[in-house]
Amino acid sequence: MKQGSNFAHWQQQVQNHTEQTLNRLLPLSDELPAPLIDAMRYAALDGGKRLRPMLVFAAAELGNNIAEAVDNAIAAIECIHIYSLVHDDMPEMDNDSLRHGKAACHIRYTPATALLVGDALQSMAFSLLSRPTNLSPERQLQMVQTLAQAAGCSGMAGGQAIDLACVGKSLNQNELEHMHQLKTGALIRSAVALGGLCCNDIEQHQLTALDAYACHLGLAFQVIDDVLDCEQDSGVLGKTAGKDAQANKPTYVSLLGLASARQYAENLIQMALEALAGFDHRAEHLRELAQFVIARNH
Amino acid sequence: MKQGSNFAHWQQQVQNHTEQTLNRLLPLSDELPAPLIDAMRYAALDGGKRLRPMLVFAAAELGNNIAEAVDNAIAAIECIHIYSLVHDDMPEMDNDSLRHGKAACHIRYTPATALLVGDALQSMAFSLLSRPTNLSPERQLQMVQTLAQAAGCSGMAGGQAIDLACVGKSLNQNELEHMHQLKTGALIRSAVALGGLCCNDIEQHQLTALDAYACHLGLAFQVIDDVLDCEQDSGVLGKTAGKDAQANKPTYVSLLGLASARQYAENLIQMALEALAGFDHRAEHLRELAQFVIARNH
Repeated sequence: MKQGSNFAHWQQQVQNHTEQTLNRLLPLSDELPAPLIDAMRYAALDGGKRLRPMLVFAAAELGNNIAEAVDNAIAAIECIHIYSLVHDDMPEMDNDSLRHGKAACHIRYTPATALLVGDALQSMAFSLLSRPTNLSPERQLQMVQTLAQAAGCSGMAGGQAIDLACVGKSLNQNELEHMHQLKTGALIRSAVALGGLCCNDIEQHQLTALDAYACHLGLAFQVIDDVLDCEQDSGVLGKTAGKDAQANKPTYVSLLGLASARQYAENLIQMALEALAGFDHRAEHLRELAQFVIARNH
Repeated sequence: MKQGSNFAHWQQQVQNHTEQTLNRLLPLSDELPAPLIDAMRYAALDGGKRLRPMLVFAAAELGNNIAEAVDNAIAAIECIHIYSLVHDDMPEMDNDSLRHGKAACHIRYTPATALLVGDALQSMAFSLLSRPTNLSPERQLQMVQTLAQAAGCSGMAGGQAIDLACVGKSLNQNELEHMHQLKTGALIRSAVALGGLCCNDIEQHQLTALDAYACHLGLAFQVIDDVLDCEQDSGVLGKTAGKDAQANKPTYVSLLGLASARQYAENLIQMALEALAGFDHRAEHLRELAQFVIARNH
């Protein structure tokens, strides 16, 4: 499937809207501790593919969504994603100095500030999801639960701990998969779930189908990340390339080889698309996002 | 007012109950990434005064509380408090090696693990508060909002950023107060608020009175902390003594002198007690906690 200019236009719209929404919802440095707020805004604004907000938006198109809840959800999921990048780049973790084509937060500011930026962005995510909106409190509470589970020790933070523990070890495909399902998959799943939960009229079987889509997509995203990390140079990626291989971390490419890893990602994308079979044209952006994940070059 | 053995007994009960509740609600390392879970349990269990859980319990005694919501609230507030200690002890922050009389988390494990422990404990706090209970979803959402605000850039994390920025600077009393109101006061206020919110029958004017109590108490707590930090040795405190003075951080003792700082704390405790004037005997433990804060020696 060739992606049309309409999808590129939609992507641009979501990116612009995400930027504007974060800009509006992040505090201003004239109200609150200036160095912290400046650094939060530096880390959160003007960077990134905004894949997770796109997933929230695309899933929210499946029903009658509450726009304010969607905005809070896209900002919340980006706050969690960005906090994880800020902490992940720190010296005691990946010790990476480049992020989204600019200096990492702990380089531009200090490691202590980067630590607090991550901490404060995580709190902000839950503050956003618990603001009163026209969505029912039950639904909003479910959104908090979904994101908190995805971020914590049974999700993203747990995956990062496994990642730390397996440097220099050989993992089999199941172990690698489990690590990625937690480290990046959980947050991608929660982005799709949050979008669906913003619709008052979504049904449980639809949420289940959405989750199957998101599971396959999340894994494909990670496989492609490993492929790109092997193929590309730092200029295109906007981050230091080849870091995982240098750090002797297991990757899909080291496990399967480059060609098989790419084929595996393509199979996962097919399964993601099949999970959407029961949806009508309103799932079009979810389908195009799946194509985008496999076609991206950074 | 002399504190009777009943209060000491109640304190012990709350400490035991908090320990059991955290032990039950924290994940087990046979289910999830073992090094992370072990380190989370190490940081969270067997240590600390459990002042914030005491405040939750004491405030929850003012009405008909939902026991399960109280348990989730005490565990959640301790998760936030403990995550802040774990991150605060790290090399880029206070670089402290001793906490609750044992090795700090980044010493016992690694700085990278300590970073993830703090991150995962914060997520866990919001996961706990969003679990379905018999408390109304509106109330639970309000609890999430209260804790997220208290933890974030307009609360604890913001206060820590101000604290970082003011090393070696002289602050006046207003500036010092503002820093402490964010850094430690916000979480103490939220502990009291969470306890009140667990009662289905609490009224808004009671929540307002509780908040006035908590504001004064939180500030008194910090003033006494500065006094103890100056007076005591590390063995009694269970953490490295005199760190703030060594680090050239402004304290109430450096600003007011030792005797005036203690007097100021006593005045604040009086104001805290006055805020409780409208409550009957059910506020007894809140009153005794105020006395405890001024009488404690560690």
